[in-house]
Amino acid sequence: MTTGYFEDVIVGTRLEFGSKTVSKEEIIDFATKYDPQPFHIDEEAAKDSPYGGIIASGWHTAGMAMRLLVDNMIDDTAGLGSPGWNNLRWHIPVRPGDTLRVVTEFRDKKRSASKPMMGTIFGYMEVFNQNDDVVMSVETIGMVRARSDGS
Amino acid sequence: MTTGYFEDVIVGTRLEFGSKTVSKEEIIDFATKYDPQPFHIDEEAAKDSPYGGIIASGWHTAGMAMRLLVDNMIDDTAGLGSPGWNNLRWHIPVRPGDTLRVVTEFRDKKRSASKPMMGTIFGYMEVFNQNDDVVMSVETIGMVRARSDGS
Repeated sequence: MTTGYFEDVIVGTRLEFGSKTVSKEEIIDFATKYDPQPFHIDEEAAKDSPYGGIIASGWHTAGMAMRLLVDNMIDDTAGLGSPGWNNLRWHIPVRPGDTLRVVTEFRDKKRSASKPMMGTIFGYMEVFNQNDDVVMSVETIGMVRARSDGS
Repeated sequence: MTTGYFEDVIVGTRLEFGSKTVSKEEIIDFATKYDPQPFHIDEEAAKDSPYGGIIASGWHTAGMAMRLLVDNMIDDTAGLGSPGWNNLRWHIPVRPGDTLRVVTEFRDKKRSASKPMMGTIFGYMEVFNQNDDVVMSVETIGMVRARSDGS
């Protein structure tokens, strides 16, 4: 099951997939490169933080969710990238050993007026951990190719 | 210059910093892990895409911008993470060899009613390339410790 081409996307479809377990080493590795705040990279400092231990960078969580989308939903041929995402929220921390899955829904789609061989898919994605807590949510926007110009 | 504690943040302050040059290898390495779409990881496929060549994952651009914030603005002691960001936009692609810098402005701040020893800083960040094009913009939300409870 992939997003597929513009014509293939059925608004209202809800998809659920993924099982990504994140290790402490991966959390520290990502954050060392892109978000080296103490509660992401330093176990002692993290214990003394309000989080009580190492937590994943929110950008790492977004990256892991993106990987699940690419592996399970976005079609290599149809996908054309994204102009941006809205209302990105990190609800509760992602901790070492957590297993993430994605639930995403297609909410709307719109063919491009100027480039009718492509269109935009509007969605809403939630990322859950193994306890069924929502750890992240976001309104997604993705551009895809169309099979025809719709005329 | 750092964000500092809640009391230190002056609404209206505009900061500019950073000089991060991104290599093709780093673009491919990030995307291989977190966003393996063809136009991020495959030179031949990228040439045939609308982008005409390898471009950085938007999440990689966000990560590089976050690193610039952590290195230049966010205080290790005062910073308490973020509940989310709004209206994340990738305006034009980031390509191998591009050099990124950040311009960010503090737009509002609000002490927590329930936890007065902390507060939230609302900002707006633009990421520019070496040609002074805006490659990414986002409304930022950050939580910081306060020096006192404000009473």
